[in-house]
Amino acid sequence: MKARVTIMLKNGVLDPQGEAIRHALGTLGFSGVEGVRQGKVIELDLAATDAAAAEAEVGRMCEQLLANTVIESWRVEIL
Amino acid sequence: MKARVTIMLKNGVLDPQGEAIRHALGTLGFSGVEGVRQGKVIELDLAATDAAAAEAEVGRMCEQLLANTVIESWRVEIL
Repeated sequence: MKARVTIMLKNGVLDPQGEAIRHALGTLGFSGVEGVRQGKVIELDLAATDAAAAEAEVGRMCEQLLANTVIESWRVEIL
Repeated sequence: MKARVTIMLKNGVLDPQGEAIRHALGTLGFSGVEGVRQGKVIELDLAATDAAAAEAEVGRMCEQLLANTVIESWRVEIL
């Protein structure tokens, strides 16, 4: 079973990497880009076969390791 | 209009960051994680109102700046 975790900075947390991308896109002539936020995506191959249990387990992984929950929010999708 | 770009290393390209996550999860007692791949997600706020045109423009952004197309694949979703 595959799971995809998407981790983004919370709203209000400064995202200098996203800001740098926005500036670089403007330099390349891409106008009309009003904001950019960069985050991480982590794809997990799991041995589990129960989707609900897998989703709960991946949530624990996010809380303990994958995300910095002070400044980042996370979302799990079971694929 | 919002667009989400997901950028992953192509299959066969070594992903040491994913490997490090897999190892750390094992250390924390999460067994049953068979593989981990880490990628990037970039969320763009666009001024464009035409979804098809926006998707094509974001594709050009990926080719020119966002992804290293030698080792990374990209996917665009218009939200």
